[in-house]
Amino acid sequence: MSEQRVIVAGASGFAGALAAELVWRHPRLELVAATARAEAGERLDRVHPRRRVPIELTELDLDRLEDADAAIVSYPHGAATPVVAAMRGLGMQVVDLSADFRLVDAAVYELWYGPHGDPDLLENAVYGLTELAREDIREAELVANPGCYPTAALLALGPLAERGLIASVTIDAKSGVSGAGRGGGEGTSFVSATENFSPYGVDGHRHQPEIEQELLRLMPAASSASRPGAAGSAVDVAFVPHLLPLDQGLLASCYVDLAEPLDGEALADLYADRYAGEPFVEVVDVPPGVRDVRETNLCRLHVASLGERQAVVFAAIDNLWKGAAGQAVQNLNLMLGLDEAEGLE
Amino acid sequence: MSEQRVIVAGASGFAGALAAELVWRHPRLELVAATARAEAGERLDRVHPRRRVPIELTELDLDRLEDADAAIVSYPHGAATPVVAAMRGLGMQVVDLSADFRLVDAAVYELWYGPHGDPDLLENAVYGLTELAREDIREAELVANPGCYPTAALLALGPLAERGLIASVTIDAKSGVSGAGRGGGEGTSFVSATENFSPYGVDGHRHQPEIEQELLRLMPAASSASRPGAAGSAVDVAFVPHLLPLDQGLLASCYVDLAEPLDGEALADLYADRYAGEPFVEVVDVPPGVRDVRETNLCRLHVASLGERQAVVFAAIDNLWKGAAGQAVQNLNLMLGLDEAEGLE
Amino acid sequence: MSEQRVIVAGASGFAGALAAELVWRHPRLELVAATARAEAGERLDRVHPRRRVPIELTELDLDRLEDADAAIVSYPHGAATPVVAAMRGLGMQVVDLSADFRLVDAAVYELWYGPHGDPDLLENAVYGLTELAREDIREAELVANPGCYPTAALLALGPLAERGLIASVTIDAKSGVSGAGRGGGEGTSFVSATENFSPYGVDGHRHQPEIEQELLRLMPAASSASRPGAAGSAVDVAFVPHLLPLDQGLLASCYVDLAEPLDGEALADLYADRYAGEPFVEVVDVPPGVRDVRETNLCRLHVASLGERQAVVFAAIDNLWKGAAGQAVQNLNLMLGLDEAEGLE
Amino acid sequence: MSEQRVIVAGASGFAGALAAELVWRHPRLELVAATARAEAGERLDRVHPRRRVPIELTELDLDRLEDADAAIVSYPHGAATPVVAAMRGLGMQVVDLSADFRLVDAAVYELWYGPHGDPDLLENAVYGLTELAREDIREAELVANPGCYPTAALLALGPLAERGLIASVTIDAKSGVSGAGRGGGEGTSFVSATENFSPYGVDGHRHQPEIEQELLRLMPAASSASRPGAAGSAVDVAFVPHLLPLDQGLLASCYVDLAEPLDGEALADLYADRYAGEPFVEVVDVPPGVRDVRETNLCRLHVASLGERQAVVFAAIDNLWKGAAGQAVQNLNLMLGLDEAEGLE
Repeated sequence: MSEQRVIVAGASGFAGALAAELVWRHPRLELVAATARAEAGERLDRVHPRRRVPIELTELDLDRLEDADAAIVSYPHGAATPVVAAMRGLGMQVVDLSADFRLVDAAVYELWYGPHGDPDLLENAVYGLTELAREDIREAELVANPGCYPTAALLALGPLAERGLIASVTIDAKSGVSGAGRGGGEGTSFVSATENFSPYGVDGHRHQPEIEQELLRLMPAASSASRPGAAGSAVDVAFVPHLLPLDQGLLASCYVDLAEPLDGEALADLYADRYAGEPFVEVVDVPPGVRDVRETNLCRLHVASLGERQAVVFAAIDNLWKGAAGQAVQNLNLMLGLDEAEGLE
Repeated sequence: MSEQRVIVAGASGFAGALAAELVWRHPRLELVAATARAEAGERLDRVHPRRRVPIELTELDLDRLEDADAAIVSYPHGAATPVVAAMRGLGMQVVDLSADFRLVDAAVYELWYGPHGDPDLLENAVYGLTELAREDIREAELVANPGCYPTAALLALGPLAERGLIASVTIDAKSGVSGAGRGGGEGTSFVSATENFSPYGVDGHRHQPEIEQELLRLMPAASSASRPGAAGSAVDVAFVPHLLPLDQGLLASCYVDLAEPLDGEALADLYADRYAGEPFVEVVDVPPGVRDVRETNLCRLHVASLGERQAVVFAAIDNLWKGAAGQAVQNLNLMLGLDEAEGLE
Repeated sequence: MSEQRVIVAGASGFAGALAAELVWRHPRLELVAATARAEAGERLDRVHPRRRVPIELTELDLDRLEDADAAIVSYPHGAATPVVAAMRGLGMQVVDLSADFRLVDAAVYELWYGPHGDPDLLENAVYGLTELAREDIREAELVANPGCYPTAALLALGPLAERGLIASVTIDAKSGVSGAGRGGGEGTSFVSATENFSPYGVDGHRHQPEIEQELLRLMPAASSASRPGAAGSAVDVAFVPHLLPLDQGLLASCYVDLAEPLDGEALADLYADRYAGEPFVEVVDVPPGVRDVRETNLCRLHVASLGERQAVVFAAIDNLWKGAAGQAVQNLNLMLGLDEAEGLE
Repeated sequence: MSEQRVIVAGASGFAGALAAELVWRHPRLELVAATARAEAGERLDRVHPRRRVPIELTELDLDRLEDADAAIVSYPHGAATPVVAAMRGLGMQVVDLSADFRLVDAAVYELWYGPHGDPDLLENAVYGLTELAREDIREAELVANPGCYPTAALLALGPLAERGLIASVTIDAKSGVSGAGRGGGEGTSFVSATENFSPYGVDGHRHQPEIEQELLRLMPAASSASRPGAAGSAVDVAFVPHLLPLDQGLLASCYVDLAEPLDGEALADLYADRYAGEPFVEVVDVPPGVRDVRETNLCRLHVASLGERQAVVFAAIDNLWKGAAGQAVQNLNLMLGLDEAEGLE
């Protein structure tokens, strides 16, 4: 079988560079271009010495995309929309790493990111949390790759949400510095971040509406309709991110008020069953460390009871892999009819 | 005024060594001995190069304590009791850094630490969270210095607890590696801890009963009595610690379900009022980083509303200072009639 | 072609665990056992969560080695000799990670490590710095895998040594904490190592005689014979290691007093020519960072002129890979007639 | 005695902010202004939470300096000259942290930094390595504060240089990330620097001419005149800096080819004698770690023999303290007739 031709648009950031590396070494994909603006003309492995891709970054030319089958787009929020629209116009399959196609409601998007450039495209996008939407992703032409925090939180909460077991949830999340992206400002300098740890975004973080939207979608209709104060349209989520003094790694500690009593064994069984056979989700019997999943596409989950009606679920991922570029390739594999794990192990 | 003579018993651990340094450079205290077992005969600044105390560690000799006025004891749980008992028998004023005198109920102590060696002594011990028990500490002969996690959590929750505003609370706490003590095992090795972050003690941590006991004590009687499921004797606390890849620093993120609605402004006012004039508590309007308080006795607090009936309070401390040796000296200052901040700035 | 059966003896340390992982995922090797003493019965990926080898560690049984073709032995110095001797007695091919077979002169070994347990075996051992002794390794039955510092230093100095261009050399070397091994003592605790950096072994380090021996072997006879003060038998080497606050990574900065003048271009050409075509040595035109080679078997080299008769050569490796387990597999591949890079990319 | 009034000009960078803090808490100095351009109007402790100076940064107004007695200027190279000239015109005593007054020869300055803005001022500047030029500093009106690397290297080499014992020297130096200053570029981001270590400036670093100039000045006339190839005007120095994955700390490992044989004991005696009684130089008998001197004005030195004619001297400092702001205050104390250590302990 011939290789599928893939463009990585926006390969100078952390996630885009990793996406380029994953496509480059993928046995069934061919990296036909890795694009960048400021760094066009430089070799990717010079810009990112850790990414061993000895190809030259080029400027994206929307008039010369004809021969590519698919693309992973890693542009800033807002800037991704016209690029994705052009690619979709040519029939290319696209995984988009920005937030531009994650929120189904353009009005909610506007609240957090500003006016949406192409609301019509939203309808056809599939929210790409692989393990929770696999069949839709197989059929999708445009996948909105989830944010790093929502990836961890939703994998942690999915099994409970699907059963309508979440009365409310508090997500205390912690991410390494690479989550802020290249050029993340002074807070991402070594001097600021080392030996430090602090909350941020306490007055509202863009990943919160994304988590709420998807939790609600996962919940059985009756359950969500009956939630007090929710008017059938919301789930009670508190989400607070913190910045860890490490490079790659994200842990979400999710404290769930249960809609009905569940003991530790029932919780463990629920998670083991739900994720049985998943290549990239491991339900483990000890709390996971982010180092355990570093430079892998894995999500490690641990669930425990904190009382008759309270549970905690921990999810550890590498924010650049399962939280971004790894999941993008996982999704692209599905869209192209390949083995989901190809090129990721 | 002449200097008070102070022994630091157990000065080879992280907290004990800092206590020795603080006493050593204290303008009103004289460090008459810093004791250790295995390292007796070595100079303190050789064992702990960061602690600039050029004195020799000696073996503790309980028969030769007569000329000391007070002691800070930094022994392992269980081992502290006989030392403290002997010192108290001689009339010395003692601040004990172990857990041996923190729990008022010997039965609860036994559940977490084993049988207590001298339950009678418990009655006279004062739980030394300075800002919440200052007057008692002034009169105390024996102060049980709080654990590092309880210090942060109780400073964060005190103002709400005192008003009966806590329906339930989830404490997601994160500590640097020094919190585990010297010889903390393989998890505290550089290779294990760097670029890592993980929860631990999920099935129960010794600081939980301490937090519960003190929260309950702070709550107005009516409030605690009426708590559902609590039978008038408990407060609903979930406490989960995590290990940070840094040396000194602790952040407690406390998520409170409020007993009655409070908005952000009311919360901010409550905290500003409660801690007005405190030399070591700073209520700030941005989320605190642990680096901001490193090598200081400060606790930085930030409170925010997460919804009509949910608040979050962040408390950042240096676990070796306000979480251990710094607070010990603060308490000793009070017990000896000195300015509380002396030697700590 | 069938797979070769390989034992990793001593898989509970950092290097042994990585060796087990590399053999485990090697397409042409079968990991028949990974042994340990204290941790026998535990799963390898529980002891080392980063090493994704889901097999149980077993006790080494020297009476049941018959069906293995080869072994990688990662025992402490001294303890390796009897194990290696037994394996060699059965005709197994062995790569030994200890120092036991690195020094050709048992008297020199004794000076640094104590009496040698089987001096006769020394004769048949080949010093396994792959790029500098490839043909001998192909024929070897027993390979002494070089130390991490000698690996970097000799790759850096080899091209100059082979041409007799080294009058004297000062090696300022820096290694991450994993170089000290598991259980490396208090200096390897997170609290000691973080935000710290210090020299050690200034009064003599075991890797110095190894570097001297191999440099001398590389030098042309006339050159070494004519060295002032060397009596034909020594090369003037100063070697000082330092401890870096990072996990995996080693940089050797080698300052060479040249036996004859060479400019920067001549130096660059010499290195480019010498290592042309090498799969694991990259001669680069900028100073290398240890992060560039992390979790790879690569050595990155950069050479520059510091004056008419002084050059500096930097070599960056991952101390656990090219400095230990990676090079062991590279050598084993050669001994078994496989592609040298198999399983290492 | 009344307090001296001091301006810190350029207090938004790392060194300037520390200088402001040191003056702020100095018992004999009054901080009359801390200036900044972009951050004017912000509070210093908001810009630098670790620097506990609750005053507002203001724009520097050269027309309103009349009432200040002295200044510490922390401007970029080139930009410092006009500010210093204006202050000197008003008779203020100035310690300048830039390179603008360090090199006595304007032509050498121009090679490394561009044309000098006021070469006449060079004549009156004293190079402020306190321990090596104390008496000149006492009389100085303008002190050029040394660079961080030269401070460590010259303290390490001074005792040998003064005796004419240095034939040549190789300085392998390593600095924490704060040495690159705020806004130090992508190499100073957390993601780039963590778990990394690399050389830089191999083709020439601005601190090299500064080290050469001062070493030559320290050497006895006969010694420097007779140096081969030096034409009486140069000393053979190789200097290579490296970037450490830590915040504050600098270690210089100085390898000296001795002009005449000296054993370890003679070396130790030479250093102990030379620095006897120095408040901020500690000659120690073990290799120093940078953590030992963190947040202090100390330089820890250790000297050892590496052979009959080779010695190594290690110098550890905190690059922001003894390598910048701490030494600036030490010098200012001398210039103002105060105790040299005032405000630094």
